[in-house]
Amino acid sequence: MKNFNFYNPVNVLFGEGKILEIKEQIPAGSKVMITYGGGSIKKNGVYDQICEALKDYDFVEFSGIEPNPRFETLIKAVELARKENVNFLLAVGGGSVLDGTKFISAAINFKGDEWQIVESAAKFDSAVPMGTVLTLPATGSEMNSGGVITKASTKQKLAFGSPLLFPRFSVLDPVTTYSLPIRQLRNGVVDAFVHVMEQYLTTDDNTPIQDRFAESILLTVMEEGSRLVELKEPDYQNRANFMWAATMALNGLISTGNTSDWATHMIGHELTAFYGTDHGVSLAIVLPGLLKKVKAERKVKLLQYASRVWAIDMNMEEDKIIDLAIEKTDDFFKSLGVETSLHANGISKDHLDEISERFIKQKYVGMMPDVKPSMVKEIFEDRF
Amino acid sequence: MKNFNFYNPVNVLFGEGKILEIKEQIPAGSKVMITYGGGSIKKNGVYDQICEALKDYDFVEFSGIEPNPRFETLIKAVELARKENVNFLLAVGGGSVLDGTKFISAAINFKGDEWQIVESAAKFDSAVPMGTVLTLPATGSEMNSGGVITKASTKQKLAFGSPLLFPRFSVLDPVTTYSLPIRQLRNGVVDAFVHVMEQYLTTDDNTPIQDRFAESILLTVMEEGSRLVELKEPDYQNRANFMWAATMALNGLISTGNTSDWATHMIGHELTAFYGTDHGVSLAIVLPGLLKKVKAERKVKLLQYASRVWAIDMNMEEDKIIDLAIEKTDDFFKSLGVETSLHANGISKDHLDEISERFIKQKYVGMMPDVKPSMVKEIFEDRF
Repeated sequence: MKNFNFYNPVNVLFGEGKILEIKEQIPAGSKVMITYGGGSIKKNGVYDQICEALKDYDFVEFSGIEPNPRFETLIKAVELARKENVNFLLAVGGGSVLDGTKFISAAINFKGDEWQIVESAAKFDSAVPMGTVLTLPATGSEMNSGGVITKASTKQKLAFGSPLLFPRFSVLDPVTTYSLPIRQLRNGVVDAFVHVMEQYLTTDDNTPIQDRFAESILLTVMEEGSRLVELKEPDYQNRANFMWAATMALNGLISTGNTSDWATHMIGHELTAFYGTDHGVSLAIVLPGLLKKVKAERKVKLLQYASRVWAIDMNMEEDKIIDLAIEKTDDFFKSLGVETSLHANGISKDHLDEISERFIKQKYVGMMPDVKPSMVKEIFEDRF
Repeated sequence: MKNFNFYNPVNVLFGEGKILEIKEQIPAGSKVMITYGGGSIKKNGVYDQICEALKDYDFVEFSGIEPNPRFETLIKAVELARKENVNFLLAVGGGSVLDGTKFISAAINFKGDEWQIVESAAKFDSAVPMGTVLTLPATGSEMNSGGVITKASTKQKLAFGSPLLFPRFSVLDPVTTYSLPIRQLRNGVVDAFVHVMEQYLTTDDNTPIQDRFAESILLTVMEEGSRLVELKEPDYQNRANFMWAATMALNGLISTGNTSDWATHMIGHELTAFYGTDHGVSLAIVLPGLLKKVKAERKVKLLQYASRVWAIDMNMEEDKIIDLAIEKTDDFFKSLGVETSLHANGISKDHLDEISERFIKQKYVGMMPDVKPSMVKEIFEDRF
């Protein structure tokens, strides 16, 4: 185990009816800005519950935060918040709304070009406090201090973060997920699964508890995620279990003391930036291809993954075991109804060379040196 | 899964050399009180590292916090802190020092009889902030907001807690554990194991991720705990892995959304209060006896435990499987060198009836109704 610091002060309010408790969490007299996306919260009852919880507060609203939230959109929210002297943000939605609101939180008091918070990790001393009501389990944004936003004008999809950006609280009410379309559920399952893989399927750092926690999340995401997309009617316990698993997948716990990668996300972000590919789909395309390229370097972890997660018979050649584990990973994504090739997702070859070049220019992909920039092109060829 | 709130703001600083980082954690100008036990920290280098880290602070010391820390001792620390206008507490030691310091933290500003904080959960609005340097992995006190202290004059060993009592930070440096005697290591392994069992081996609340996390900790405590007591020389990775597992065993994570018991602890505390039995030993005595009494009520979880933790062949009668799982639990404690009968621990029958009567008068044992006060006597008979 390597040295680490672990700090996660998010107050999680989990379960049906918990939205009402936000009134105990936001300081009295706060000027609140509610941020949300396309307005589905007005149809599924979430908005009404929030209005009820906030009836003693003065609040404004900012809607229209899109999937893969754009700097160009968010900066309008920043301007509104400044104009209205907002001092508490309430993000209501999925990872895009939450990530976007983290950016708003950091940008409101920032002097200078706000995009530098993202592009060059410009420092900031304060952030406007925020809470979240999560309606789409997937990204883990509800219990971490990072986000990813996109600048449309330059086709950049980049991550940012700061301990100042932990939500003060996050409401996780599984009922709020009942109206989600199947596509978002599928993508969420893939996203949570790959979040774990980015932190777990790397080097062997002698971290037995972190490894077992990671495997616990993978197994739960597989079981509950499969049911999630199969069930005709939402099941509360199924939604609850998947929701908590997705939160655990990216709250810092399983990455303590070991090595993370994030190369799959980095390549996936480029597909989204150039082709508008759903985030979850982009990960399902890239991960199996990437794992094939690092079979030798990550042998120990791949064998452990094969045995503990897929219960593959270990009395075979190691290479066969690993191939089978990667195949089963790909098959799992397909079983959810997610296409895992570039071609089947309507991705043309037009920009693939441009993406590969970006990585070559940047000189790295993720945090593990075994994924080399030159491999990006090969991964695309394999996954076409 | 049941509704829950989860909040744990402790900043964990994990690894060799991390003691020096406490100077970034304690506000400049603080008047610090260092609390510790019998003085082993002066022999193993921990005290010197702390003095180095605190060289820019004004501090006083309070030593002599005993195992099963006593109200009578702690109240002297409270008086010293008041006299010296202490505004930050640094607890250095194991669970006894940390728990005792939580009481000091709550009591300094308390008006009235401070024992009421423990005996009748008297409310308090503020607590003096504290940090910890953990030197004995076992109790989990470093990452939770509760404690247990004893009033010697009345032979009461009772729990208390408040969200105000989370340490601001906890340093977990595995090297600080190198000088621990074998007895404390053994007891720590049992304590961490039983902490998990109190939260996991209860009802089936459809909490797959919490169950798997609990099983992850049990398996890691078994593996690393066995090595811990076997190894002639301390091994850093072994100490690190056990230390992190023990913290995870009682930081609130595995008890989210499900049902805890704590009956084994309640009975064990009485053995300690009357006979001075080591806390870990008291748990090793009680747990196997208690599980035998609830075989029917907890069948689902006992079978899951048998299969996932002990890999017991499930092609047997359920009753046999459960008996075997309980036997293996008892054997695990014995394999560590812990005696698990009352008799072998020198416990006479003198006070056993008195303890049983206490529970009958109190009308409950733990939080699960299946452990009835009348069973305490039967458990003692079984474990004599």
